[in-house]
Amino acid sequence: MKLHDVTLVLRPDMPTWPGEHPPRVEPLRRIARGDGANVSVLTIGDHTGTHVDPPLHFIDGADGVDALPADALVGPCQVLGYEGDDHISQSWLEGAGVAPGIERIVFRTRNSARWIDPDAGFDKDFLALDETAARWLVQRGIRLVGSDYLSIEPFGSGKLGHPVHVALLRAGVVIVEGLDLHDVKPGPYEIVCAPLPIRGGTGSPARVFLIER
Amino acid sequence: MKLHDVTLVLRPDMPTWPGEHPPRVEPLRRIARGDGANVSVLTIGDHTGTHVDPPLHFIDGADGVDALPADALVGPCQVLGYEGDDHISQSWLEGAGVAPGIERIVFRTRNSARWIDPDAGFDKDFLALDETAARWLVQRGIRLVGSDYLSIEPFGSGKLGHPVHVALLRAGVVIVEGLDLHDVKPGPYEIVCAPLPIRGGTGSPARVFLIER
Repeated sequence: MKLHDVTLVLRPDMPTWPGEHPPRVEPLRRIARGDGANVSVLTIGDHTGTHVDPPLHFIDGADGVDALPADALVGPCQVLGYEGDDHISQSWLEGAGVAPGIERIVFRTRNSARWIDPDAGFDKDFLALDETAARWLVQRGIRLVGSDYLSIEPFGSGKLGHPVHVALLRAGVVIVEGLDLHDVKPGPYEIVCAPLPIRGGTGSPARVFLIER
Repeated sequence: MKLHDVTLVLRPDMPTWPGEHPPRVEPLRRIARGDGANVSVLTIGDHTGTHVDPPLHFIDGADGVDALPADALVGPCQVLGYEGDDHISQSWLEGAGVAPGIERIVFRTRNSARWIDPDAGFDKDFLALDETAARWLVQRGIRLVGSDYLSIEPFGSGKLGHPVHVALLRAGVVIVEGLDLHDVKPGPYEIVCAPLPIRGGTGSPARVFLIER
């Protein structure tokens, strides 16, 4: 068994979505000041770093992050390597060799190279899925889809109503964003996607492992 | 494959260690007030709910939660069922049928029944490990140990210098606390213990799965 940790380290100087703050850690107890242990309080946006979007992120009244089915979060997964420079489309997906019966797909694109430089700021020119790709994934019965930047949808999609997110989330597809895949080869893995079960949460940071067996 | 989610749901009315606050979720963006999506900010103690103790929790200058080895967090695990009313000791462990070569052990005790009632407050009379048990686990080369209440050490151990935590953490054993095992039978599993990789973190809430294959 070989483990790949594809999670971004949470740090105060990490890039975040515009308008959102990086995580903050504040001391609650410190041995150095006479307390019995070191304990801290973390303040973090629920779409910071590697994170999961539940339906509630874009659909009022829909399921929060604690209601995501565990059996979608864990299981066989295919990492698809994408070498293109445009957003990923249905036509590319049709020729991408998606394995029959696969229910979890993660896209490794040139985005992952951005994670190598810890000082790189937010970059809106990331690659994402277009609407045809989202619809194709839904039709194929995909239950979890992962991207290697902070959104699975092109920057600036708000004016269109975020059709990629909405198509996926309406169909109950779990979206994982902010995966660091720079050190992972395309192929079959088992994924464990582990968001915190925040009751009614609009999202959650997640730890994500890809396991090679 | 059968998945057991043994993680406590994070909610504002959950029990916490005395002196620590339950998690708080505050709205950052809301569709209902004209934003493009629902996004929140989570404020949470790093030892809240199901969580991991890294060496830094009790040893200044030691490794934080982001430095825990992933290959200790994931792998074969034995759930030991404990029916006793005293804290778990070396002498009990010697007769407990610990499997040869096992590196991850989780204790299911009467504590787990407390998680069935969501309104139950913090209870200091939980079962834990005594110092002889901690030393035995270290000698056996255990890499991860899990408990089904908010500490692996009896309440009030501060006056003794927290010998159970210190023995385990000095040896690099990962401690997982706050597991909800009320629905899990003793036996062999694969565990995936997934704390957030908070840089230099003194702890982290974690999602934890037990997988039956």
